[in-house]
Amino acid sequence: MSIRIGIMGYGNLGRGIECAVKHNPDMELVAVFTRRAPETVKILTETARVCRVEEAQSMKEEIDVMIMCGGSATDLPVQTPKLAQWFNVVDSFDTHARIPEHFENVDKTASENGHVGIISVGWDPGMFSLNRMYANAILTNGKDYTFWGKGVSQGHSDAIRRIDGVKDGKQYTIPVESALESVRKGENPKLSARQKHTRECFVVAEEGADLTRIENEIKTMPNYFDEYDTTVHFISQEELNRDHSGIPHGGFVIRSGRTGWDDEHNHVIEYSLKLDSNPEFTSSVIVAYARAAYRMNKEGQTGCKTVFDVAPAYLSALDGAELRKHLL
Amino acid sequence: MSIRIGIMGYGNLGRGIECAVKHNPDMELVAVFTRRAPETVKILTETARVCRVEEAQSMKEEIDVMIMCGGSATDLPVQTPKLAQWFNVVDSFDTHARIPEHFENVDKTASENGHVGIISVGWDPGMFSLNRMYANAILTNGKDYTFWGKGVSQGHSDAIRRIDGVKDGKQYTIPVESALESVRKGENPKLSARQKHTRECFVVAEEGADLTRIENEIKTMPNYFDEYDTTVHFISQEELNRDHSGIPHGGFVIRSGRTGWDDEHNHVIEYSLKLDSNPEFTSSVIVAYARAAYRMNKEGQTGCKTVFDVAPAYLSALDGAELRKHLL
Repeated sequence: MSIRIGIMGYGNLGRGIECAVKHNPDMELVAVFTRRAPETVKILTETARVCRVEEAQSMKEEIDVMIMCGGSATDLPVQTPKLAQWFNVVDSFDTHARIPEHFENVDKTASENGHVGIISVGWDPGMFSLNRMYANAILTNGKDYTFWGKGVSQGHSDAIRRIDGVKDGKQYTIPVESALESVRKGENPKLSARQKHTRECFVVAEEGADLTRIENEIKTMPNYFDEYDTTVHFISQEELNRDHSGIPHGGFVIRSGRTGWDDEHNHVIEYSLKLDSNPEFTSSVIVAYARAAYRMNKEGQTGCKTVFDVAPAYLSALDGAELRKHLL
Repeated sequence: MSIRIGIMGYGNLGRGIECAVKHNPDMELVAVFTRRAPETVKILTETARVCRVEEAQSMKEEIDVMIMCGGSATDLPVQTPKLAQWFNVVDSFDTHARIPEHFENVDKTASENGHVGIISVGWDPGMFSLNRMYANAILTNGKDYTFWGKGVSQGHSDAIRRIDGVKDGKQYTIPVESALESVRKGENPKLSARQKHTRECFVVAEEGADLTRIENEIKTMPNYFDEYDTTVHFISQEELNRDHSGIPHGGFVIRSGRTGWDDEHNHVIEYSLKLDSNPEFTSSVIVAYARAAYRMNKEGQTGCKTVFDVAPAYLSALDGAELRKHLL
């Protein structure tokens, strides 16, 4: 019997989940839940329904895992604990400072109602967190580095677009190659924000706008750009659409550390991702954790979990003997 | 209270474990067990004892986890299941074809006696297996590649030293850079053994030996060298000792795969290690899994496990709330 999946929210992430479910033959998409009028939402899966958000509760017997595809700012803090009453849930909550609070909230309703909720799943938080944790547990005497990119930062792109005179824009976060190389050599450099990443902006200005002012406003914008070396390119809307419509991303988690009785040996552990589509990769991770949520709950586990709490085998469609034979 | 560790076997790996225990303040080395006369074995830890292998059973109340540091060919298949009667055990069994059988044997005695046994821990099998598994679960439509090196292969070095006229020698396995690059680009190449790795040998010949014959014997040796492009350098014993006395290793696990409704996007996941000391890094992984074995057993779990069965959080000295706050 398939694992029956629901998708709560149908933006980039929801569509990514739909594609990822298609790539996992042991899963089946039952329904997509939307705040829009269902008849206006066109999905790709012919066998699945489009429902109103309010219908979710009534479908609790038809869905094994509800995948929460709302935003971390306002949707998930409310929706994930609420839906954990009725379903096993997985989300990609990424507001770092609020994770402890979100964990408690999801843990409460999931535990009380006998469900599993896995929060903060994706690649960062998610696979990057896991790799930081494994590397820390192995090399106890060492130093971690996380680099992001090359990739599109949605937050920085939004910030550019809010500037007066800007019609459209896209921002790429780019790791500094020489910093990466120093870390890989085990040199344990101290790196400022500026030394780790550069920012590259492609901006479509409105006709007659003051380009010098726009460039200056971008480069000096507090928090977003002022601590970085930023390059600004003005291009046409056609060029932006043609060359910058994708949502690539990626990055590097590197830990170097020392072993030996007198710390005489150095080691470097590196994990990296190069992603053509940030939301589709995030979705692929989430769907594997949806399988885990389903299985852990079948075994009687309940409450809130993170990637740290999930034994890897739960993610795979293969059973233990197959995993040992083929992947160990 | 510390986790009390025993080390069974005191070669390179046993010494690595001793160093790794020193780097983990929640652990304490109680005793090293050896087949040699204990009084002839000098260890580094002043507070630990050196005991005969036969004394192990009598110390079952004093040791929480016994770390098995024998060889996979003949030691571990016998010792790990046997010691699992009295202790939680961790080993680095790496004879791939015999893992299912070894798993069954350890599972039987560990389960019957209420212990946890974690087998095949290290980096390959171990961290590489984990990364293959995670990447397979995420990118279900893709292809895996494992490259080893640059590093010393003990088996190939031994094979060289068995050749008539060879006094000493060391073999490095080296990944082919162009193959790595092709895989990283997501080109999914078909690669023969020769296209993935080259082999470089540093050989000390006996005086008057026929160097051409030795070189030819190495390059044509079935299984070990004949399927590879091999380079042979004749050097002096002094040079070998000076430049090739380390045991570095490492490698790369790469999976590329496609997502999207029509498989339109490509992704590359890469995990790599660059290790100054193969046995010390392996030991550092094993010691983290010793912590996991201890904790899982404290929670009432028993039987044989692999890295696939161990939730990551068990490896870390930090508790769940700390992990969520600092590493998620």
